[in-house]
Amino acid sequence: MVQRKIIQWRKNQVKIDRFILDKQKFIDSKLIELVGDLQAPGHLKKAFDYAIKAGGKRLRPILMMSTYEGFSNSIDKVTHPALALEFIHTYSLIHDDLPAMDDDDLRRGQPTLHREFDEATAILVGDGLLTYAFQLISSSPNLEAEEKIYVIQQLSQASGIDGMIGGQYLDLKAENEEIDEYELSTIHNKKTGALIQAAIKVGAYLGGATPPQIESLQSFGYYLGLIFQVQDDLLDVEGDATQLGKPIGSDVAKNKSTYPKLLGLQEAKKRKSQYMEKAKEAYIASNVDQPYLLQLIDVFGNRSN
Amino acid sequence: MVQRKIIQWRKNQVKIDRFILDKQKFIDSKLIELVGDLQAPGHLKKAFDYAIKAGGKRLRPILMMSTYEGFSNSIDKVTHPALALEFIHTYSLIHDDLPAMDDDDLRRGQPTLHREFDEATAILVGDGLLTYAFQLISSSPNLEAEEKIYVIQQLSQASGIDGMIGGQYLDLKAENEEIDEYELSTIHNKKTGALIQAAIKVGAYLGGATPPQIESLQSFGYYLGLIFQVQDDLLDVEGDATQLGKPIGSDVAKNKSTYPKLLGLQEAKKRKSQYMEKAKEAYIASNVDQPYLLQLIDVFGNRSN
Repeated sequence: MVQRKIIQWRKNQVKIDRFILDKQKFIDSKLIELVGDLQAPGHLKKAFDYAIKAGGKRLRPILMMSTYEGFSNSIDKVTHPALALEFIHTYSLIHDDLPAMDDDDLRRGQPTLHREFDEATAILVGDGLLTYAFQLISSSPNLEAEEKIYVIQQLSQASGIDGMIGGQYLDLKAENEEIDEYELSTIHNKKTGALIQAAIKVGAYLGGATPPQIESLQSFGYYLGLIFQVQDDLLDVEGDATQLGKPIGSDVAKNKSTYPKLLGLQEAKKRKSQYMEKAKEAYIASNVDQPYLLQLIDVFGNRSN
Repeated sequence: MVQRKIIQWRKNQVKIDRFILDKQKFIDSKLIELVGDLQAPGHLKKAFDYAIKAGGKRLRPILMMSTYEGFSNSIDKVTHPALALEFIHTYSLIHDDLPAMDDDDLRRGQPTLHREFDEATAILVGDGLLTYAFQLISSSPNLEAEEKIYVIQQLSQASGIDGMIGGQYLDLKAENEEIDEYELSTIHNKKTGALIQAAIKVGAYLGGATPPQIESLQSFGYYLGLIFQVQDDLLDVEGDATQLGKPIGSDVAKNKSTYPKLLGLQEAKKRKSQYMEKAKEAYIASNVDQPYLLQLIDVFGNRSN
């Protein structure tokens, strides 16, 4: 009985790993294709290539596509929104890495864009990717005008002043400050949670989910965002620098507020388990049949990079 | 006869000055209202206020609104796109002023945003204004979905990698380089011309212009962009620092390619006159009855700030 369960768990593990790998390959090839078509002056074009070819887990577009596939078989509609989302995410990392912001030298084991090129190029590549995201959605031949508007509303709101940008601002200001768990979760809900939720909402909406289903899935995304962040903080304490592609301990070095610092390591892990449980409940409440979403909870909670 | 012409010219002058002033007041009040409603954390909100209250000529939204009014009497449809355009323009100035870019300390007689606040805040305010522009258009209650998509397409393209961002990149790289007049006009068509053209195209489209009218007006916008830039270069040589709100001679100091440097002062002025003539021809070809557009050619060509 126990053995059968272990075999089943291993089978599922293989399946989700393969699912993610296939999606990553698809997303990477599409991103490279789009960036290849960009009309950018010579050296700037190289910087866009660098930004995209540096790779990444592509978790946000995978999440949007997985949710969409819980409702619809065709992937036509979701492709451009998913790619636009990854462009927005990539821009945010490039700007966050700048010397005036988090001042990071390494990203995914490679020099950050401003180290490989220069600061001006990094600012412009970030601006360019953000702008291009909206150009891509608005010009997509696969979406109705109403659908484009929904996607642009969701992504601009989540990545905007009351979302990701506000969160990054609060995060910078919280360095060297004493904040409580409520403030910490507010920062992360804005900085990373909002865009993760938007990924799921857009996927559900484009797939044809009902409003109550979208609501449950939004709650699913809310907990997924928290899981993501607690695990991020845990990896900075217990992770492997090689797998992470960046040094560990940088949160401590920058005197950042983190879950382990605020709650202690054991309590932070407990919090993560609680959020994983909540995410499962929200998934079940949504009444969607997409087992990969359930498995993505584990992927988010147990990732090593 | 001559005297009557002068009187008529003065009357027109008073009318266009009043027209611009009224539009500026309207745009400023709407910008302040929108920024007042932004959900941004405390100090970041102050930075958005600062960015907007620093003022500006508001030439781009005025151009969009004037074109629109050549075709339609209601201003409902054009207001949000015009404000979004000004947010995009404002973001571009904030990022261009950054130390890694043009490294400017003064803008409109006041410290640039990164001098008044800090670089991180300036990067985030720029990102925020750009994102908010698309949020504003996509959420406008005054536009049909198809209209929103058209506006987003035009503005994202003009301000994007093949437009404003590419132009800024080329402009930075051209410092200390020898370039010819063709390369110089390419830079400026991308950096400032594209967004001026988009302003006019969007105004015409929303007002209900026919495709041939839009085409003529796009050509009108093309020359207006060139006039704007030649005058910008001339002001940096012959302008008044107090009126400009920034020191003159900064192009020379940065060893920038400009029209006066490339062609000489007299030839640059002649080029401006030729472009003003071309703009008038394009206006006449468009067959729109909006005399303010004609007068805006003079405003662009003879502005002192």
